[in-house]
Order: sequence, then structure tokens, then C-alpha cells
Amino acid sequence: MMKEFFKVKTIEEVLEYRTKFAPLETEKVPLTDSMGRILAEDIHSDIDLPDFPRSIMDGFAVRGASTFGASEGNPAYLVIKGTVVMGKSSNLSVGPGEAVRISTGGMLPAGSDSVVMVEHTEAIDDTTIEVYRSVAPGQNMVTVGEDIKRGEVILLSGRVIRPQEAGLLAALGRQEVGVYQRPVVGIISTGDEVVPVREVPGPGQIRDVNTYTLMSQVMELGAVAVSFGIIGDDYNALLAKSTRALEQCDLVLVSGGSSVGTRDFTIDVISGMENSAILFHGISISPGKPTILASVQNKQFWGLPGHVVSAMVVFSRIVKPFIEYISGLGEGAQNEIRLPARLSRNVASAQGRVDFVRIRLIQKDGVNWAEPILGKSGLISTMVKADGLIEIGMNTEGLDEGAEVDVILL
Amino acid sequence: MMKEFFKVKTIEEVLEYRTKFAPLETEKVPLTDSMGRILAEDIHSDIDLPDFPRSIMDGFAVRGASTFGASEGNPAYLVIKGTVVMGKSSNLSVGPGEAVRISTGGMLPAGSDSVVMVEHTEAIDDTTIEVYRSVAPGQNMVTVGEDIKRGEVILLSGRVIRPQEAGLLAALGRQEVGVYQRPVVGIISTGDEVVPVREVPGPGQIRDVNTYTLMSQVMELGAVAVSFGIIGDDYNALLAKSTRALEQCDLVLVSGGSSVGTRDFTIDVISGMENSAILFHGISISPGKPTILASVQNKQFWGLPGHVVSAMVVFSRIVKPFIEYISGLGEGAQNEIRLPARLSRNVASAQGRVDFVRIRLIQKDGVNWAEPILGKSGLISTMVKADGLIEIGMNTEGLDEGAEVDVILL
Repeated sequence: MMKEFFKVKTIEEVLEYRTKFAPLETEKVPLTDSMGRILAEDIHSDIDLPDFPRSIMDGFAVRGASTFGASEGNPAYLVIKGTVVMGKSSNLSVGPGEAVRISTGGMLPAGSDSVVMVEHTEAIDDTTIEVYRSVAPGQNMVTVGEDIKRGEVILLSGRVIRPQEAGLLAALGRQEVGVYQRPVVGIISTGDEVVPVREVPGPGQIRDVNTYTLMSQVMELGAVAVSFGIIGDDYNALLAKSTRALEQCDLVLVSGGSSVGTRDFTIDVISGMENSAILFHGISISPGKPTILASVQNKQFWGLPGHVVSAMVVFSRIVKPFIEYISGLGEGAQNEIRLPARLSRNVASAQGRVDFVRIRLIQKDGVNWAEPILGKSGLISTMVKADGLIEIGMNTEGLDEGAEVDVILL
Repeated sequence: MMKEFFKVKTIEEVLEYRTKFAPLETEKVPLTDSMGRILAEDIHSDIDLPDFPRSIMDGFAVRGASTFGASEGNPAYLVIKGTVVMGKSSNLSVGPGEAVRISTGGMLPAGSDSVVMVEHTEAIDDTTIEVYRSVAPGQNMVTVGEDIKRGEVILLSGRVIRPQEAGLLAALGRQEVGVYQRPVVGIISTGDEVVPVREVPGPGQIRDVNTYTLMSQVMELGAVAVSFGIIGDDYNALLAKSTRALEQCDLVLVSGGSSVGTRDFTIDVISGMENSAILFHGISISPGKPTILASVQNKQFWGLPGHVVSAMVVFSRIVKPFIEYISGLGEGAQNEIRLPARLSRNVASAQGRVDFVRIRLIQKDGVNWAEPILGKSGLISTMVKADGLIEIGMNTEGLDEGAEVDVILL
């Protein structure tokens, strides 16, 4: 029987190790490059936005009181004093019974407190309009600081910069923004049977798939993927390559080593590196149990399963939150989307571990059905067919047809 | 009253114009750059995957029949003929009562049809093992073509390349892949009151926000954003800049022009360009009604509202599917995620138009609540607070607290 040197850990236990690895350094990037990056500073506003009363309609700046009671049958008559020029403050002022032409975005002149829409007016002559509706003070305009108040803390560090956050930073005049550096992730494939994509595999050989799935998963997170190629089952070669990868990267993923021999071998390589400690070896999940995490020179060094489905699932469920942590992503911002669906048929599951089942989403009669995809964890085609994963808990023997499930999208 | 030259169109009517614009050219990219790109070729497999019978366990390759009836109390005794070397085909062959050591990923030797896991065996001496469980033929192995069969069509053009599709292409030896070119989107901000982010706005001026929100929305789609800066309300300047942007880009977004004057002005500029036709002017949505789409030299030329929320909503709901169409994205692949939630309070809505309401998602008692965010469509802060949008249909007067809604995530 195989010896178990390490006690298999639960997902929750494993994720606690995240805080062992410090978030990366920060850097300043131009606002136009900030999309999708993680904010590394709190953003306070040093201005009111807008800092002038601003029309949100085309029409006439007025005193609301001048229009009170106005209707189609009983219009108010106002005298046109002139026109607001866009992007300038006007010298005109608006008194009772007066109006100044204004466009959307224009600055309200002194004395005015609201805007009558042009659609609710009619010109009588060059200097007089009829107004058919009353406006309340503040109507059809934005007041000073209505969007953002001076001194307000608007964004906190750890937040992802979406298009609207980029827009907000632009409004505040931020040409540069402090963000966390992107993690650089080194990827090493191992196995004597693995050949590069450009080669035609001989008998018993297969092309390297994990390098491409893992690189793409890393890029999907907004991190930088660096491939270090394929290493055969050779202690010295893997030690040398791992050492080089750790020097150049913030963390390293070694895939392969599903076989007992290769797994032991990854363990030996970890032990052979200075300042290294294995944090766990084995997670109570399926697929993906034989996963190793070591701290080497305070960087994450991962031993991932060789089967492509297992490596992808471990990346998605385990490695990703570790990368997000060092990326500076705030706890609240780790908002993973889980789509509710109903299971299209019974799924069996073993107790004592969390099972991740590949599923395809099918819309039928307005219901989202999650259809389990069966197949061994070495089959890439099953992941290509899959839209997502469902999680079946430790203490569950399986789920019945029709059960409500939450789909983690792939 | 304002004249309406164009009849306002519904979202469905508007989206039918997508097919007026041809999908972009295709190009070959290295597999490592294919992440997130849209496939522009059907992928057939010219090989069986795997093309040899492959062990998925560490153990012994056997004939299943040699183990039938084996148990802890009544083990089968097998003679070890040798070991499979990884990445090679073995000269050994397995007869009745025989076994060959094999690792995960190894090629089954001639005569074997299954693998006994090492955990279910015990070595008696150097050449004999006891087997405690029976295996069926095909067990603990992958058969030839079990993942992908030679000649199978595995991926169709129009599909997004996710990590698993990249992995599949690697398995098939594809170093390059045919994808649609990324759309290049030109962005022009207009308005005499708009100043660049680097400037301190004077009275009545505001900083350019739309360039940054729109560039980021374009980048989020995987397209290329090119900013052409800010143009004041000057016919000749906008005509010249629009002409240049159309030469360099696949489509152009002009934002601003919410005011009647500027809107007319965008219309004039469109008419001033050769080979141009306005397709629609006005959509029955809120916010975002005063949206213009023209075809200019067979490219999309968009006039978007100036209010930042309106421009973002129009981009998300209208422009995005147009960009996806010319990106080559297949109909089935346009799988937008809508997250079910319950409305936290009543929302009013006008009949005769589709309202998009900004909402914040709040988890409470295991329920996803969608909390409406009120605020004028010029306020960027409302989008920063928002997690998504809900759509309130044309013929709905509003939704009640507790109503089931689908949230379009932002």
C-alpha cells in the first residue's frame, strides 16, 4: 500500500495558507492601461463633481418660481436674456420672469436654479418664450457635488478597475493610478512521455497540453504567464529549471507528476531548494487530490496533477484564489459568479471529499439545466464540452435529478 | 416642439442592422496568443487522441481476465514480466497470468487490456504480485480515440478560445490558429465644455470621462481602442477627425452630442462624409435614447449620448453585439450571463420603452437582492456603485419589491 506522508487537507484548510504569501509590490500605470488592474491606493476626491451647477437638458435656465402654475392653457411668459456658451461661466444673470438659453452640460447662470426643457416651451418672438410646465428648483440640472463630494473616499485599495472606475479616475484628473503589479507565473510541464506541440508524438508519447491550458488560465486572471518548457523525469534538470523559474517569477506551477514516482520526485526537488517547506500535499477534492504546495524562498511552488482536467480544476478552485491574494484583490472583490441551475440527472459522489463535476448548461422551458459530463480526468474533450463546474460537498453522497445547483462558469 | 426626423426604433429592430456590417478578416496567431480570440476555422482532428492505449493509474498492465474473482481473501497471483518505460512502446507482451509495471500515462503493452492499481496489489517477491481486486477490460486506462476520434469536427468557427480550447489545439499539434482580427475601435469625445484629463477644468468645463469608460469597455471585449481625443463643437474639425478615425479603424464611436445642437451637428458630419447613410436615430431605451448609427464607407459610425451612464448603457446593450458580430462571434457563443436576483424595492418605469436600471447586488439570508441605484444619467458615481443592470420591458409599468429579475453584470 502507498504511504501517505501528508494528511490530506480540506479546501478551507488549504486556502488559509494564502496569507503566507505577501501581496506583490505596487506600481503606477497610465490610466489608459489600468483596465482590469487592481487598485493599490484609496481614492479620495479633492474636488466637487461637478464643481458648477450643470444643465442636463437643452432648454432655458430659469428661477423655478417663475414657472409655478404654468400649463398649456396658462403658460408663463419669460424674457430671454441671452445664451450660455458651453464651457464658460456666463456674465448673464437670471431674475424673476427671465430665462437664459442653455444646452445640456452648460453652466447655469447666476440667479437660476433649474432648467425648463425646450420641448416644454414655444418661442413667441426673439426675446420671449411661453413655458407650458412648471419646474421645481433643482430640476433638470446637477448640483455642485451631486456626483462626488470633495473629500469623499470613493474607491478603496483592492478593488478591480472596471470601465466606470477608469471613468471616475478620469473625472478626478488622475492620469496615473497606483495598482498592484501583475503576478508573473512560471509554468513547467514534466514527464518523459510529453513532447512539444511542434513535434509528432512517437509511440507512447503525447503533446504538452498543460502548458497551454495553464498559461491561458493565468492570462485570464490578468497575470503574466511564462512557459519554461518540458522537463523529462530528471531530478537535476527539474531542479535547475525550477530554480531559474523561481528567480524570474512570483510563483511557479509544475504540472505532471501524477504518478507516484514523479510525485516523489517533485517532493525531492522542493527539498533540494533552499529555504523551502512543503505546506500541504493532497487536497480532499476530486479531481485534483495529489496537489502539492510548497513555500520556496517565500514564493508559491505548486505541484499540480498531470491529468489536464485535474490541473484545470485545481487551478480554478485552489491556485486562483492564491494568485488573487498576492495580486492585492480585496476580500469583498473576489466576487465569483455562480449561476443557479437544475441538475438534469442524478450524480453520484463520494463522501469525505468535494467533487467538482463538469457540466454543460442547457436552456429548456426557461430553466437552466446543468447536464453532467462524464469522462476521465485525462480527457481534454470533456472540458471543451463543459460550460462550468458544480461542487458537491464533502458530506453529500450525491445529488438527485432536479436538485438546485450553483454553476461555477469556466 | 422638437422635430423627430427619425422614428425611434426598438432594441430588436436596431440589432437587425448588425448583419449590414461584414465580419472582419481573419489572421493566423501563435497558439499562445489565441486566448480569448474568436476561432475563424472549423477544427477537425487528423489523429486519434490518444493514439495509443494509455494508463491513467500507477500499477500493472494485465489481461482483465487474469484478475476475475480476485479479492483480499482470494488474491490472483501474477508474474511480473518487466516495466513500461514512459514515452516508449514496450517490447513486452502480457499473456494470461502476467503483469507489466506501468505508470500513469504509460502505453499499455501488447496483450494487456486493463490496469490494476498498485494500491490493490502486494509484491510477493521480485517477480510475483498478489492482486486483491478484479479489473474489467478497459478499466483504469484510456482507449485509442477515447478523447477525440480521427476525423471528428471538434470546434466550429465563431467560438471563443478558452483555456480548454487552447489545450485541445495543443493536443492536435496546432502551433498557429486562424482567428478573426480584433476590431479596432476609434473613440472621439466632443463638446466645447470637455477638457483633457491632464487639465484643470475652468468654470463650466468638465474633464473627458467618456473616452476612458468607452476605451475600457472596448478593451473588455478584447477589441483594440484608439483614442482620437476631444473635438470642440466645430463642424470642420469633427469632419476631419471622423474621416481620419474611419480610415484607421473598423468602427468609430463619437460621444457627446446629447444637446440638440451637437446632435444635429453629428448628423451633418455624417452627411458630409462620402458613402454614408444614417440607419437609425433614436432607440426606445432609457437611458440612451438619442443614439445614432450610420454606415459610412461600410463601417459603423456611432453617435453616442454624452451622459456617461447613457453612453455606457448603450455600449453594453447595443454597440457590444454589433462589435461581437464583426468579431466573428457565433450566435450560440454570445452567451451573456444574467444572474437571477430579487428586487429590493419597487421600481417605476415608463411604458413604450425599455428601461435599464442600475443595481447593486446584496446577499442577504442566502438570497441575491438587486437594489436599485437612483441618480441622473450624468453621474459616474452611480455606475461605480452598480454591480449590474436590470431590464424593464416595454410593456411594463414597473416592478414590485420581491420581483424576480435577471441582472446583467457590469
